[in-house]
Amino acid sequence: MAQEKSPRRPRAETPKGFRDYFGAEVAERNAMLARIAEVYHRYGFDPLETSAVETVEALGKFLPDVDRPNEGVFAWQDEDQDWLALRYDLTAPLARVAAQYRNELPSPYRRYQMGPVWRNEKPGPGRFRQFYQCDADTVGSASVAADAEICAMLADALETVGISRGDYLVKVNNRKVLDGILDSVIFEMGKEPPRERNETDFEYSKRIFNTAKLVEKDAVLRTIDKFDKVGPNGVRELLTTGRRDQSGAFIDGVGLDQRTAEQVIGFMTARGVGNEETLTNLRMLIDYSDIGLEGVNELEEIVRLLAAQGYGPDRIVIDPSVVRGLGYYTGPVFEAELTFEILDEKGRKRSFGSVAGGGRYDDLVKRFTGQAVPATGISIGVDRLLAALRAKGRIGAEASPGPVVVTVMDRDRMADYMAIVGELRAAGIRAEMYLGNPKNFGNQLKYADKRQSPVAIIQGADEAARGVVQVKDLILGAKIAAAASVEEWKAQPAQTEVARADLVAAVRRILGQP
Amino acid sequence: MAQEKSPRRPRAETPKGFRDYFGAEVAERNAMLARIAEVYHRYGFDPLETSAVETVEALGKFLPDVDRPNEGVFAWQDEDQDWLALRYDLTAPLARVAAQYRNELPSPYRRYQMGPVWRNEKPGPGRFRQFYQCDADTVGSASVAADAEICAMLADALETVGISRGDYLVKVNNRKVLDGILDSVIFEMGKEPPRERNETDFEYSKRIFNTAKLVEKDAVLRTIDKFDKVGPNGVRELLTTGRRDQSGAFIDGVGLDQRTAEQVIGFMTARGVGNEETLTNLRMLIDYSDIGLEGVNELEEIVRLLAAQGYGPDRIVIDPSVVRGLGYYTGPVFEAELTFEILDEKGRKRSFGSVAGGGRYDDLVKRFTGQAVPATGISIGVDRLLAALRAKGRIGAEASPGPVVVTVMDRDRMADYMAIVGELRAAGIRAEMYLGNPKNFGNQLKYADKRQSPVAIIQGADEAARGVVQVKDLILGAKIAAAASVEEWKAQPAQTEVARADLVAAVRRILGQP
Repeated sequence: MAQEKSPRRPRAETPKGFRDYFGAEVAERNAMLARIAEVYHRYGFDPLETSAVETVEALGKFLPDVDRPNEGVFAWQDEDQDWLALRYDLTAPLARVAAQYRNELPSPYRRYQMGPVWRNEKPGPGRFRQFYQCDADTVGSASVAADAEICAMLADALETVGISRGDYLVKVNNRKVLDGILDSVIFEMGKEPPRERNETDFEYSKRIFNTAKLVEKDAVLRTIDKFDKVGPNGVRELLTTGRRDQSGAFIDGVGLDQRTAEQVIGFMTARGVGNEETLTNLRMLIDYSDIGLEGVNELEEIVRLLAAQGYGPDRIVIDPSVVRGLGYYTGPVFEAELTFEILDEKGRKRSFGSVAGGGRYDDLVKRFTGQAVPATGISIGVDRLLAALRAKGRIGAEASPGPVVVTVMDRDRMADYMAIVGELRAAGIRAEMYLGNPKNFGNQLKYADKRQSPVAIIQGADEAARGVVQVKDLILGAKIAAAASVEEWKAQPAQTEVARADLVAAVRRILGQP
Repeated sequence: MAQEKSPRRPRAETPKGFRDYFGAEVAERNAMLARIAEVYHRYGFDPLETSAVETVEALGKFLPDVDRPNEGVFAWQDEDQDWLALRYDLTAPLARVAAQYRNELPSPYRRYQMGPVWRNEKPGPGRFRQFYQCDADTVGSASVAADAEICAMLADALETVGISRGDYLVKVNNRKVLDGILDSVIFEMGKEPPRERNETDFEYSKRIFNTAKLVEKDAVLRTIDKFDKVGPNGVRELLTTGRRDQSGAFIDGVGLDQRTAEQVIGFMTARGVGNEETLTNLRMLIDYSDIGLEGVNELEEIVRLLAAQGYGPDRIVIDPSVVRGLGYYTGPVFEAELTFEILDEKGRKRSFGSVAGGGRYDDLVKRFTGQAVPATGISIGVDRLLAALRAKGRIGAEASPGPVVVTVMDRDRMADYMAIVGELRAAGIRAEMYLGNPKNFGNQLKYADKRQSPVAIIQGADEAARGVVQVKDLILGAKIAAAASVEEWKAQPAQTEVARADLVAAVRRILGQP
């Protein structure tokens, strides 16, 4: 007879690249997000919570060639053949919402959303496939006042959660300035395509000119996005003749001439000692380009509008070296950088760096409705900002206080212990009764230790008969145990007997509560 | 030449059965959950946030016969062939966590988790495929003190969010009592299976006896779970000879004899005028069954422990008619019922009903480790509780206050308006500058109306020159517009001119802020 195999036990594991968050991690993040939400609320932004699941069609990640549209997203096929997926950011759902509810929502629509997003990517150290984003966007306003407002709100949000003024800078750049520079220099660079039938000389020239500009501009934008990685010299090489990277591989250059490449590098290094000087530098670079001039004027206006509210260059600076996302955004781009230094894993000092980024993207809902709708917004890197607050000792320093533990000396008197813990809780004191097997008292104290309890309450039959309880200051007790002589330890000043009626007051005293 | 089709635009729609939450809906839920979290924290419960994605193996929903294990869950196959799925509740992830981190977590482990869960079910009116749960559980304690604590905490949580004492009851029942009743009556009911080779008379009898009990008990448990639907008479029919339902279909009965069925009905209707009487009734029903006695004693102890903390029968009652989940739980079960009446969709008064349920389930992590770990907990129905608070006017009544809207009269003076809105925000007042096209002033007031703004600020060139602003009380304005005569309306007492420097004070006055 075939022996039936007993089924293998399931593994108790999170899927690869996912993790759980415990206790203080959850509480600290929630507290930080609640504080940011208060700022957003004050600015008139309304909360939005979209569903975690979207149609792949709405997300815009459907690749018709492949069997499953899961490049970068977690996707599956519904019963009626629709592909569904977990959202990979909070912007794509906003685009869908702005299109779906365009007749109901106020215009402009200010909204914020906080929540997890999912990426189907190879997980790595510190890189997870589920993480939090915290976004605020204004949809339906083309005004730079909307961009300026986002910058002010970002500054307020950072200060509210505990980043002091002086420890951060909101840097602003503008894609249009770079576009202007490229417009004024890229003229004769196209690889000429064959002339089409019936095309006049004029039409042909115009087509080559525009195609060339487009091709080169995209390549230039992709290249300068690597600025953080390869530095100014690397970008210079990549913009012109190409570059051999560390592995020895050769990466083709964009093919700009030296002069044009220097213009682009000049843009990225145009930051002066103040916003005025930066604006002057940019004006020189853009020559007579209309789009470039528009970009510089926008930057100037943003700075002016912010100054009117008291946000000066100690908080907001124009910085053309902010290039991340220039290829994605269509106007102003923002980045919040923390300027204080921390020690990296090798013990070297380095600037903490970016914790938020965003900008203007004017094609948000066009995919759905065909109509361009201007939008601008910011996304705060929740985990980065939490790490910064931890580095500055703003959170986690006091190692969130554990509960008072009411120990169980006498199994028959559970109701008495329950009454004690009830009294403490009613007084607003975090408290627990020990709920494990009470036989071994040592285990109860070990439990209190694991819970980081500040106080243990002990009442045996003897104490109960006399109407008293023992109140043990566990923090003081640990200090004495670590440092004291045997005599001092025996004196046990960390444990005091108080009348049962004085219990709450005694615990409050130890906790330093009024 | 073949004309290239322009690609179809994607539909801006949430997937079927999913929805978005806007503004006050999000804020109200978050506020309610934050208040509940405070109570849980005070009771020593720690927050936990598991990943939304679990392995299907860990969730325990894998059906080896079908191609895709998506019965009831949203599941997909990972690149390395693992099946992943969205969690369908918060208990399965807790079981996985309790097993995965059993060496690190304190024992007992008190945890709460709040968040969305996903069900791959046919959506219906008011039934969504993503919804919130709010759970609190104690893992690793077999003590009824843990059950009692859950009941007290549930009562506190309900009162904290705005359900008054007297408007709710936490009802407690115990699976063991029913087990005891069934033990004492189900003796000779097995459909006798063929005798196996080498089986002695004694072994055979024992096997039949135990199998029969198991089979009948499950059938009985499934039947009484239908109590809410079919009532006592329906249950009586289903426990005995069977029942014809409204559609005319005949449902086979469990086959209990009349006397046994009455015992079970007797259990479900054993609630007396007080907990004492209920306990007496139950003791009579269970005869000499050990397990039944244990169950009654547990109920008695829970009531005693709660009374010691001041939770009397006005808040906690033993109610054997609470049968939902008796088939799932292994000991005490809890249900929080709201006792006030609301009008249903047909205008009839009915009791609001259940908003939370839970109980003891002692096989939580056994699937993973082979070791039984006792656990007890509660799950609050977030949407039901929010609906209750709305029905009682606890939330949504004041229609969350919109922002003060600073209108734009003069496009060149954006910086001035920005300064005004900045001042208001710095004073803690929710405020916006109008960011749409300012050309049409009527649109700005329509926007303010849509935003439910209490106040609009207006400053034209004339007012600016005189150093004043117009402050328009929109709520008073709307009242006057609705009720006043033309003369009164012209007097426009809802709009007043104040010195620019007095702006914040004037707005505060209208908002009724100190």
